[in-house]
Amino acid sequence: MKPILIAIAGGTASGKTTVVDEIIHHFEGEDVAVLCQDNYYKELDDISLEERKKINYDHPNSFDLDLLYDDLKKLISGKTIASPVYDFKEHNRKKNEAKEIVSTKVIILEGIMALYDSRIRELSDILIYVESDPDVRFIRRLKRDIKERGRDLDSVILQYLTTVKPMYDEYIAPTKRFADIIIPNDTKHDVAIEILAAKIKDILK
Amino acid sequence: MKPILIAIAGGTASGKTTVVDEIIHHFEGEDVAVLCQDNYYKELDDISLEERKKINYDHPNSFDLDLLYDDLKKLISGKTIASPVYDFKEHNRKKNEAKEIVSTKVIILEGIMALYDSRIRELSDILIYVESDPDVRFIRRLKRDIKERGRDLDSVILQYLTTVKPMYDEYIAPTKRFADIIIPNDTKHDVAIEILAAKIKDILK
Repeated sequence: MKPILIAIAGGTASGKTTVVDEIIHHFEGEDVAVLCQDNYYKELDDISLEERKKINYDHPNSFDLDLLYDDLKKLISGKTIASPVYDFKEHNRKKNEAKEIVSTKVIILEGIMALYDSRIRELSDILIYVESDPDVRFIRRLKRDIKERGRDLDSVILQYLTTVKPMYDEYIAPTKRFADIIIPNDTKHDVAIEILAAKIKDILK
Repeated sequence: MKPILIAIAGGTASGKTTVVDEIIHHFEGEDVAVLCQDNYYKELDDISLEERKKINYDHPNSFDLDLLYDDLKKLISGKTIASPVYDFKEHNRKKNEAKEIVSTKVIILEGIMALYDSRIRELSDILIYVESDPDVRFIRRLKRDIKERGRDLDSVILQYLTTVKPMYDEYIAPTKRFADIIIPNDTKHDVAIEILAAKIKDILK
């Protein structure tokens, strides 16, 4: 049987990962594979770290969407892939490191622009957009970038106002209209997950 | 088994009825009962038609939410109800007319403020908000009000700008955050309906 591809998009820190975790929780670990679009940022070996810090990572051109599309097609056709792994501190793809992803019944693509590429949308069975208030998203991102990605307050704010927010308005928010369902993340979303899980189980039968 | 209550809200002409029809299409006719919140506009026998035309029908106070809540509780407890029937041309509840609604496994409440009353939200198993662009909603409403409700262009525009729109912003749009899922209605919503239907069938088993 052809695997099911679920694409989950939404602005930075909108709760995409939480939704993914809750879906996985409904299934056996071995039945769900997750692809993070973040791992498909383009390789930037030819420029320095200082230059890489200035790159607009919220523009669709920062992603290697061709590679992502090819990897998704491989997974859907039953092949195992070697996903790149991204290093947020280095702003670059990790050297000599890949993440083996085995094709499973359910494949989830998660990322800010998971609904951006029309080829990927067409490949997907279910398109989801996770929506949260922008202030809540900024606060979550601020905490995460400082704690997990080694950034400081000023650089997070500067990046947010100069690229994250304008690129969200220009490239991410407009993809909401492609979603089959939108999950509002500012309240509990257990019912949304249950609804989704019921459909996935239904397809798997 | 306790019936499932699904509340479906959204602005005027957002596509709520289409979503309801598509859900019904997934089930045997006898298994789904639909309650239209429009039928629960308050009885206004003590004022003239001219005065009734000036009433703000987009304010929550125009609805008899207590009666709606009571009827929903009765249906959930397995009782048959006699729903009022509303006459849009008369701007009043129809005289000596009621719609018998038999309790079924799936009960759908559909209306602009289906997510407004906290008692009704708590009674519901699934909360849905149907979202469409405001211009598209206005155009649909304009056509429908002229064709089906005997209104003229000027009165539709006047009513839209003075009550429908401001009341939407104040009382309807804020209820979106209570939704378990939001269905964007500007594109096809067959996947959303399938997802929902899978969950309903799952509960019914």
